Amino acid sequence: MKSAAIIGASGYTGGELLRMLSGHPDVEVTEITSRKLDGEPVHKTHPHIRDTGLVFEDKKPSELDADVVFTATPHGASMKIVPEILETGTKVVDLSGDYRYRDTAVYEKWYAMKHTDKKNKGAFGLPEIYRETIKKADLVANPGCFPTGAILSSYPLVKNNLVERIVIDSKTGVSGAGVNPSSTTHYPNIADNVNPYKISSHRHMSEIQQELHGFDDVKVSFTPHLTPVNRGIQTTSHSFLKEEHLDITPDEIRTLYEKEYGDEYFIKLMDEGEIPHLSSVRGSNFVHIGGFEIDDTGRVVMLSCIDNLVKGASGQAIQNMNILLGIDESAGLTHLGLQP
Amino acid sequence: MKSAAIIGASGYTGGELLRMLSGHPDVEVTEITSRKLDGEPVHKTHPHIRDTGLVFEDKKPSELDADVVFTATPHGASMKIVPEILETGTKVVDLSGDYRYRDTAVYEKWYAMKHTDKKNKGAFGLPEIYRETIKKADLVANPGCFPTGAILSSYPLVKNNLVERIVIDSKTGVSGAGVNPSSTTHYPNIADNVNPYKISSHRHMSEIQQELHGFDDVKVSFTPHLTPVNRGIQTTSHSFLKEEHLDITPDEIRTLYEKEYGDEYFIKLMDEGEIPHLSSVRGSNFVHIGGFEIDDTGRVVMLSCIDNLVKGASGQAIQNMNILLGIDESAGLTHLGLQP
Amino acid sequence: MKSAAIIGASGYTGGELLRMLSGHPDVEVTEITSRKLDGEPVHKTHPHIRDTGLVFEDKKPSELDADVVFTATPHGASMKIVPEILETGTKVVDLSGDYRYRDTAVYEKWYAMKHTDKKNKGAFGLPEIYRETIKKADLVANPGCFPTGAILSSYPLVKNNLVERIVIDSKTGVSGAGVNPSSTTHYPNIADNVNPYKISSHRHMSEIQQELHGFDDVKVSFTPHLTPVNRGIQTTSHSFLKEEHLDITPDEIRTLYEKEYGDEYFIKLMDEGEIPHLSSVRGSNFVHIGGFEIDDTGRVVMLSCIDNLVKGASGQAIQNMNILLGIDESAGLTHLGLQP
Amino acid sequence: MKSAAIIGASGYTGGELLRMLSGHPDVEVTEITSRKLDGEPVHKTHPHIRDTGLVFEDKKPSELDADVVFTATPHGASMKIVPEILETGTKVVDLSGDYRYRDTAVYEKWYAMKHTDKKNKGAFGLPEIYRETIKKADLVANPGCFPTGAILSSYPLVKNNLVERIVIDSKTGVSGAGVNPSSTTHYPNIADNVNPYKISSHRHMSEIQQELHGFDDVKVSFTPHLTPVNRGIQTTSHSFLKEEHLDITPDEIRTLYEKEYGDEYFIKLMDEGEIPHLSSVRGSNFVHIGGFEIDDTGRVVMLSCIDNLVKGASGQAIQNMNILLGIDESAGLTHLGLQP
Repeated sequence: MKSAAIIGASGYTGGELLRMLSGHPDVEVTEITSRKLDGEPVHKTHPHIRDTGLVFEDKKPSELDADVVFTATPHGASMKIVPEILETGTKVVDLSGDYRYRDTAVYEKWYAMKHTDKKNKGAFGLPEIYRETIKKADLVANPGCFPTGAILSSYPLVKNNLVERIVIDSKTGVSGAGVNPSSTTHYPNIADNVNPYKISSHRHMSEIQQELHGFDDVKVSFTPHLTPVNRGIQTTSHSFLKEEHLDITPDEIRTLYEKEYGDEYFIKLMDEGEIPHLSSVRGSNFVHIGGFEIDDTGRVVMLSCIDNLVKGASGQAIQNMNILLGIDESAGLTHLGLQP
Repeated sequence: MKSAAIIGASGYTGGELLRMLSGHPDVEVTEITSRKLDGEPVHKTHPHIRDTGLVFEDKKPSELDADVVFTATPHGASMKIVPEILETGTKVVDLSGDYRYRDTAVYEKWYAMKHTDKKNKGAFGLPEIYRETIKKADLVANPGCFPTGAILSSYPLVKNNLVERIVIDSKTGVSGAGVNPSSTTHYPNIADNVNPYKISSHRHMSEIQQELHGFDDVKVSFTPHLTPVNRGIQTTSHSFLKEEHLDITPDEIRTLYEKEYGDEYFIKLMDEGEIPHLSSVRGSNFVHIGGFEIDDTGRVVMLSCIDNLVKGASGQAIQNMNILLGIDESAGLTHLGLQP
Repeated sequence: MKSAAIIGASGYTGGELLRMLSGHPDVEVTEITSRKLDGEPVHKTHPHIRDTGLVFEDKKPSELDADVVFTATPHGASMKIVPEILETGTKVVDLSGDYRYRDTAVYEKWYAMKHTDKKNKGAFGLPEIYRETIKKADLVANPGCFPTGAILSSYPLVKNNLVERIVIDSKTGVSGAGVNPSSTTHYPNIADNVNPYKISSHRHMSEIQQELHGFDDVKVSFTPHLTPVNRGIQTTSHSFLKEEHLDITPDEIRTLYEKEYGDEYFIKLMDEGEIPHLSSVRGSNFVHIGGFEIDDTGRVVMLSCIDNLVKGASGQAIQNMNILLGIDESAGLTHLGLQP
Repeated sequence: MKSAAIIGASGYTGGELLRMLSGHPDVEVTEITSRKLDGEPVHKTHPHIRDTGLVFEDKKPSELDADVVFTATPHGASMKIVPEILETGTKVVDLSGDYRYRDTAVYEKWYAMKHTDKKNKGAFGLPEIYRETIKKADLVANPGCFPTGAILSSYPLVKNNLVERIVIDSKTGVSGAGVNPSSTTHYPNIADNVNPYKISSHRHMSEIQQELHGFDDVKVSFTPHLTPVNRGIQTTSHSFLKEEHLDITPDEIRTLYEKEYGDEYFIKLMDEGEIPHLSSVRGSNFVHIGGFEIDDTGRVVMLSCIDNLVKGASGQAIQNMNILLGIDESAGLTHLGLQP
């Protein structure tokens, strides 16, 4: 049995790590930290996690004794603590944005703060694309929730140089905004509403661009919307075929996705005409991808659904942990979506 | 006091006509028809409309005695009854798709049926664009719900030849699917989900294209999504500036919208940075338009919110009726959105 | 045209007063106050209320110049300002709990604060019961939202001495918790949940008891639940027949309700077997009452639906204002529920 | 590895059996039947269950070859097929109401049909109360969803003869109404509503009465409400202390619950002042019980939360299967609630 510690376990992603690791065959959580909850049993914060014996502790990162540490800390905080954990020889999966960028200048622009740890580089923790890099890493930068859904829905199009422009129109559940209440997450402001936000300037755009931009000169745009949903990100990816590829067929596009993702345990390609649903992946680490349609303006429509807290955060973090520890990649993550 | 009759008053749009006309200062509903509900008081179907004395009757369209008739009938049904009403000299506002197309061949393609009334032409009932035409008409074709939100959000961009491609990504409430239950509208299939549908082939695309395509060679795409919302259509319009207009500023775009819509009673332009919300227009005939942002890929993001049953259907129908009858255009439609 | 001022117009009840008074034929809002929003136009806070010219002002209560003042202020705050308004001769409708109790000791117990204005007495603003008292009053204490639904659903049973015990089990929408975000109203804590709270000690119990207890020795209990609803209170009233009335029939009970409420404009009694729905009263001042069933344990089940912000707050406040000003009681309040 | 077959696997309870058994360490589903879906892979009906190789078959019950059979069939249908399965020596967990009643006359009254299998008796499948009986049974009658939440919330009060009357006021999620769409489950009729139904005559009342009535002369009433929730039943149990027990304290009541349920894996008693939430048990087999308050009318308020499809149906069915097969009772059921 390997051991894991969680720094910042009081939020939703911390709760999800605890929930899923409670059923992991090879890893158990031995330490959880929180300054303000020091001494409190976990169920006071996560009422679904009872009788575990786990208690929040106010411990220094370097004092943790575990095979792997999850830093479920806000951006800016992670880069302050990750270096000292890595120095102890412990592997880290970081859930913040701090180590996702190949070029820290991009980070500094979009996150509007200095990056204080330019020494350590994170492997971009999207195993379906970077599995081999992750295997060799000590530090994994777990991707953002929107980027996970957006990149996976569009990657084969870009990898094959088919499109010149992609518009990512994403609809997210409210748990993505975290556990702290605000006017944005006030029930009467969300229920019966669909709220676009940061319509041309959301941070995750830069992360999506980093991953989809690289192959070719593709213009990537992104607009997120808050919807009356607890969990899940539904992504509609509108991509415009390059002039020279206007004759590609939906079947040919499907074939490219099958080639890319056919062996991936967590990615399921929908049947022809089948729409992916958030309910099918709710609470699970699966990604459902569908669409495969082309309209007469040369627009390819691709769709993806993930659970923002699982494949978009803690589930993917556990997937990365499994890779880091040399465990079967799906261990602890085989539970199906909670439908309905 | 003028009189109105409603054919097909048992559905949501019929209920909304009744709800709003109950407060109209100059028009009252005198007859409502339904074959299957013949003899039943209105509150058995619309429990919020009580003590009106109104009873469904199984009457022929030509037997109705009213200053204006609303045909809240499905497409295909309207073209069977509208001609005989018009022959009696009564004006008609049709809520179906039957008379919305300038070219009936487009209708026949998208609605997959023969058009049996090529003689009568409807004025396209979007008063903010076609007010003068409507004034002179006997028959108004009330626009579709998605097209109303989509066209109004994008019209000034197209009218001014600024953009070459528009992607309309719309999120609708479930009342748009009508009063009849189906698997699509089954609560557990909608709640906590976001369901794209007809992702490259929704009928309303042709209606949007008809209105936005005309000015120039603009490519218009459309994908609708069902969301866990009762009422409302939130439209995100992603438009790509033509090369020669890449230097236009957000302020210049706002000025074009102010010029176009500044005097419109029902259109409200949001302040800078203000996002329109469905809750602000819920139950009302107002349209809230915002966005006015341009990202560094040359994408203009415009947003609109309407209530799909009001400005997207029955409210706009009453607005059209007011114009047809020479009444103040906002009569009976001045109530504000139900926020929260 | 009469004039009204609103103190504390930045919350939901303030917004509702503005929304409904915007369509009032005889009264217009001339002043709205808020300390922190001084100088801001109303639509910055209430985005559905635009182009009114209304601006929040930081004015003293005694400086207001209006025929009636609404104090949409928290309990404790109202009793500080109501006396000075009354002294100017202006009539007041207070939306707080401060003046609802005949015995201020009860107030002091349940609200855990000293009552500093024992001089002024409010008429309990439930017009269906206290209309004549209200007519003569200068100060109306607008009832609480739960009490409005609870009292109206059970009053005829108690008035006729039929029952010995009533259990009020109420389910409320989240707007009742006000406009300020908190963990209680955080979307992920409400959606897909039903949250009982203050299960044996909610303040409104004392208000319900005051009104239902008086007729006889009736034991009244109350438990409220927060539900994933924006607006509305659905009340299920379980009442136990006295031994000597166990042979009463549902029809006889219905007759008592018809006798009590038959002439009331805002109260609608459901048909036999018809369940009242929140959607039927959404946004309106109507009260739908149904149930009229007795099970074999001698339990009478009565049901009521109101909109907590309208009949449960601002609509009833306007109804009271109409009575105070000698205007038709339903003026400005005739709009129907927003169904669906 | 033991094998299980599911008759009627196309509904929600069938889907839940498949979802949870997919992670069961000792049992696998080998056959699923459905007449109308014969030959279809399971994911066409349950899109979250993919790549299992399972295909619906149109098989006779007696042809199934498995260690246990789940009959996820409607009442009336189960009693037609259970006898022939039992005759093959296979154990059965029946999810319908057919075998829940000790007295078939009660069944015949409440289900309004003749009971055609009076020979076979089911053990009432509430393991926390009837574990020893279930161990020896061949046929388990899985309890109804409402009764599970209601009985567990109130059983210790009744067992200890404390109360004379119980009012069960339950709020259920819509998945309890099954997978088939109807007006009752139409999204716009559920969202933003709270709908009581069968307010004095729901079938489950008789099942609750059977279990809670037996100990003493307790009057049990029940009213269910449909709420805008996918999964879950929140039960508020209002119980009235007998005159001779009016001096019991909340702590004493808690002690009785601890004594009854302290060793139960699936039952969690809330801390003092802690409210149970549906989200804490969502998707899991746990029961959260709280309340433990007494008001000054002698009313004890107890609260319980279950997932209606899990502890209220398929999870409990698996729990019963585990007992029947001599497997650890919690096998396959240890996953935690999906919070948020």
